[in-house]
Amino acid sequence: MSTFRNRILKVDLSTSTFSEESFDEGVVHDYLGGRGFGAKMLYDRLQPGTDPLGEDNLLIFVAGPLAGTHAQSFSRTKVFFKSPLTGGYFKSAAGGFWAPELKYAGFDAIIVRGIAEKPVYLWVHDGKYELRDAGYLWGLDCDDTHTLIREELHDPRVRLACIGPAGENGVRYAGIFTDRRAAGRGGGGMVMGAKKLKAIACRGEQPVEAADKEAFASAIKEQLAAYRANPACVNFAKTGTQIAEFTNLLGMYPVRNFREGVLPNWQAIEGDAYAKLRARKEGCYACSVHCGNLTRVYTGEYAGAWTEGPEYESTWAFTGPMGKADIGLTIAADKLCDDMGMDTITAGSTIGFAYELFEKGLITKKDTGGITLKYGDNRHVMDLLRQIAYRKGFGNLLAEGSIRAARQLGHEAEKYAIQVKGLELPAYDPRGAKAHGLNLMTSNIGADHNSGYGGQEVFGSPVPFPVDRFEVKRKGELTKWNQDQTAMLETGIICSFVPSWGGITEEVFGKLMAAGTGTADFADVKYLWTVGERIFNLERMFNVREGFGSKDDVMPERFSTETLPEGPSKGHIFEQNELRRDYYLARGWDVDTGIPGRAKLEELGLAYTIGK
Amino acid sequence: MSTFRNRILKVDLSTSTFSEESFDEGVVHDYLGGRGFGAKMLYDRLQPGTDPLGEDNLLIFVAGPLAGTHAQSFSRTKVFFKSPLTGGYFKSAAGGFWAPELKYAGFDAIIVRGIAEKPVYLWVHDGKYELRDAGYLWGLDCDDTHTLIREELHDPRVRLACIGPAGENGVRYAGIFTDRRAAGRGGGGMVMGAKKLKAIACRGEQPVEAADKEAFASAIKEQLAAYRANPACVNFAKTGTQIAEFTNLLGMYPVRNFREGVLPNWQAIEGDAYAKLRARKEGCYACSVHCGNLTRVYTGEYAGAWTEGPEYESTWAFTGPMGKADIGLTIAADKLCDDMGMDTITAGSTIGFAYELFEKGLITKKDTGGITLKYGDNRHVMDLLRQIAYRKGFGNLLAEGSIRAARQLGHEAEKYAIQVKGLELPAYDPRGAKAHGLNLMTSNIGADHNSGYGGQEVFGSPVPFPVDRFEVKRKGELTKWNQDQTAMLETGIICSFVPSWGGITEEVFGKLMAAGTGTADFADVKYLWTVGERIFNLERMFNVREGFGSKDDVMPERFSTETLPEGPSKGHIFEQNELRRDYYLARGWDVDTGIPGRAKLEELGLAYTIGK
Repeated sequence: MSTFRNRILKVDLSTSTFSEESFDEGVVHDYLGGRGFGAKMLYDRLQPGTDPLGEDNLLIFVAGPLAGTHAQSFSRTKVFFKSPLTGGYFKSAAGGFWAPELKYAGFDAIIVRGIAEKPVYLWVHDGKYELRDAGYLWGLDCDDTHTLIREELHDPRVRLACIGPAGENGVRYAGIFTDRRAAGRGGGGMVMGAKKLKAIACRGEQPVEAADKEAFASAIKEQLAAYRANPACVNFAKTGTQIAEFTNLLGMYPVRNFREGVLPNWQAIEGDAYAKLRARKEGCYACSVHCGNLTRVYTGEYAGAWTEGPEYESTWAFTGPMGKADIGLTIAADKLCDDMGMDTITAGSTIGFAYELFEKGLITKKDTGGITLKYGDNRHVMDLLRQIAYRKGFGNLLAEGSIRAARQLGHEAEKYAIQVKGLELPAYDPRGAKAHGLNLMTSNIGADHNSGYGGQEVFGSPVPFPVDRFEVKRKGELTKWNQDQTAMLETGIICSFVPSWGGITEEVFGKLMAAGTGTADFADVKYLWTVGERIFNLERMFNVREGFGSKDDVMPERFSTETLPEGPSKGHIFEQNELRRDYYLARGWDVDTGIPGRAKLEELGLAYTIGK
Repeated sequence: MSTFRNRILKVDLSTSTFSEESFDEGVVHDYLGGRGFGAKMLYDRLQPGTDPLGEDNLLIFVAGPLAGTHAQSFSRTKVFFKSPLTGGYFKSAAGGFWAPELKYAGFDAIIVRGIAEKPVYLWVHDGKYELRDAGYLWGLDCDDTHTLIREELHDPRVRLACIGPAGENGVRYAGIFTDRRAAGRGGGGMVMGAKKLKAIACRGEQPVEAADKEAFASAIKEQLAAYRANPACVNFAKTGTQIAEFTNLLGMYPVRNFREGVLPNWQAIEGDAYAKLRARKEGCYACSVHCGNLTRVYTGEYAGAWTEGPEYESTWAFTGPMGKADIGLTIAADKLCDDMGMDTITAGSTIGFAYELFEKGLITKKDTGGITLKYGDNRHVMDLLRQIAYRKGFGNLLAEGSIRAARQLGHEAEKYAIQVKGLELPAYDPRGAKAHGLNLMTSNIGADHNSGYGGQEVFGSPVPFPVDRFEVKRKGELTKWNQDQTAMLETGIICSFVPSWGGITEEVFGKLMAAGTGTADFADVKYLWTVGERIFNLERMFNVREGFGSKDDVMPERFSTETLPEGPSKGHIFEQNELRRDYYLARGWDVDTGIPGRAKLEELGLAYTIGK
């Protein structure tokens, strides 16, 4: 018995054929599961130079080893693919209920290849699978897609991972949505759309049982006790991700395309403001935290709007970039992005980028379809989001993301694209938090906060050693620690928030993984750290094979040349060269090329990646 | 054992209190169930002069005696109330799955009284019930309301009867929606909105068992055999209600506010055209017919739109009144009305009425908010529907329905309101089908085709005697027959379509009712006819008590004074005086006042209504 199904479903949409695989024992031992499996499969099965939108790109859906059990916050879904936004390795995760349902349906993972002739969806149920016509679903938003597929299958308990119009229409930052949770970043939805795969529906009744039930139950108790005892966790359960108060008080809430660090009237969009609009709490499978919030607008221009969320990043995406704190818009725009199926961060940031271009005169009303983009005026945001999702008008340019849009507009525009490797920065100004910035600069998927969240600099945890957010020293070491810990914990696809508020120790994580899967080595914390580092380096080698290197670990020049003008982070810049070098050294990578050294690769069992 | 629960739930929203009632045996015997119960309860419990929007109006939800069993097409929901549109007795029915779920939850009926202080919804489950906060749901469309309540109750199998923005905002023809089926006509949704009742959610597991299982199963077999054997039924299963081909070929498809009987290019909106857009068939609980169609627009202005339907009447509502056959609009507008929660027939007809007023110069762009209403141009219909649902702009007037809008605009406008008793006519020109017209003129709820559908004149069935559609003679007798048969069959709330295509005989109906409920008298066909007539007359006496009489059995003057100008019904008028008199005589009603005579009332056991 194990929480693993030992069953991977492979579907080739070009030929409408299926096959199955079981696990390679060595891979299980070396990569544990979750992100480890995804990184390994993507590295092994993708040729360098693969077109992200071509037949050969893969879309790999992975449920964590413990998904479907009562291990807390372990039931997330991770999707792996070569990104049409970054051109590199990508991973994106979603909460909700899809991964457990995949396990109940009999599988640990699904590998999708090829391009269907006509729109289809994949139906996986109780060990069986089939492709079904999605012609009538093509063009529908994510919400209607859920409703109609559940009806068609005569089972309201079916769980879906699906795309909306944004994915179908080739928005480069279209995501994959399950109920109202999203694997939002990096364009997985665009890959899915290119494959003409509207959805993967799962349903099953096969129980997931731990190898050592007693040890597993005991570890869950330890985990739950930590959740209950930890004030940060209790607080997180209350407010969810709404941390605009923290980041504004630290002066690192990005405003007007990352030119300022404090949003005027930010109190209008912080936790207490959302609490007043909260209809109820929402949670994911087997997570006692229920950090989600169903919010509702009752008055003003957006009266009637509601959403699940917005999470902090989405709140920011529709306030900071426009320089206006309008809670109604954050709720309406968040829901619109959920319905259309696209990433709020890149959507909001790309619109904010256009605001600056307009201000600088690099675009005019001729480009925008006649509208004026002016900071403090957010009236066109909803319309622009619709235009993006349907690639209409000015939205057709914005649907490319900021750096591609900039390249179309000419060299001068490029420096205003606030992104790394093509992925737009989230809601943390790196000048106010150097480990945050260093992670954004070096993450394998571009400027992703969740790849190595510098919680120390915002919340003071987790704490491997004392940290000053402005300090440059030891930030390489800290970032490596954050990134490797994340990679380690994401073998279980535990929610990234958990370590931020100290909800789990590596020991408890290891106990759960070992007792669940029946592999004793997984309880060895030192080994877990090795696996975390291995995964991070393997992802790096995927990108190296694609031609990535130190030239891609670069922040937009603004952060090195302009200081923050006001607030508690006033006067700071982001010392990117110093930080990068420190990081490479901590990583054992070549300080010039940013390529992992042979010794490091051999130490990590990644010698097979050398010279590829 | 009986298919009756013998349990009625009563809720007073003003006091947030509940009580229960069991059946009065005499009432069961005399009124059988369904429409009989609704009519009797409404008559007994409402004082004359009750404000339809006040505390004292009742909203009575009734599941049929056989709902939740496998008796075919018997699981509809009927809602009874005093109508804010007609000021009289009203009944409105919906298909779907709500009535069975009410039975499974332990009840036959729910009587709602009072007005809640704040928006609430009623949750009825496994014999228990509670009022829950609906503050966060207020303003949401019907679709989102379903989703969020199911989530809140953690049960996707919950069934809802709910209102959308139209009901909340006081549109006089707002309906009550369950999934995408509607008790659409007469403003039940407005009553529900006035009561601040957003929804009634039901869920249960209590089986519904027939009194005589063997006889019941055998009668269902007979019923199913008739469904399969009858070509009209087989055809209905294929195309659903799309009969625009019939009515156009008969020259009785109302065009341009009932001035013409053939729609140019009607082929664009008949059965075959919808079949091309059909995504799948849809059905109600325990009905093998699956007459519903999920349709999808793939090209043109409304590309991306989809709906369940539209049914024939809705197709007409967004074509005939505007004088344009645009299939895309019918689908988009049908879904919009479902989402907003309002009756398509009155919505479309009232918009069409405005078209004629505009043409006649009785309203101008000053009234319409700047738009021009011109036959053949349907571009503003979607916008007008939204304005109606939110009572914004010109929509605020149209939300009153045609006759009230006309009265606001002055005497001249009134004759263009194509309605009886305040309820707009459906898609049959009475000049081409006299029994159709006579039913519309005399139905207790206003111009409702389903109260006594003249199927003989369109499809040639059911046939009590040979019928010529233009003939005036014996149409009183025929209409009484149609109306009484309908009232009889609606004691079981069997779908109104069934008799039209000969899917059930009175004998089989009686067998099912008797074997299900255990009341032997229900198998007596002669008795069933008496009950049908009793119900129709009781409803009439409800209206008499409210001041209704022959003055309210009046068709718009157009039908008596203008002949149809073209097509197979060319030259005909509707001989309303002759037809009315013939009908009153057939009914045993006073030929001048239209009030049922004492002898008739005593014969029917309705002496208690005399002089009230």
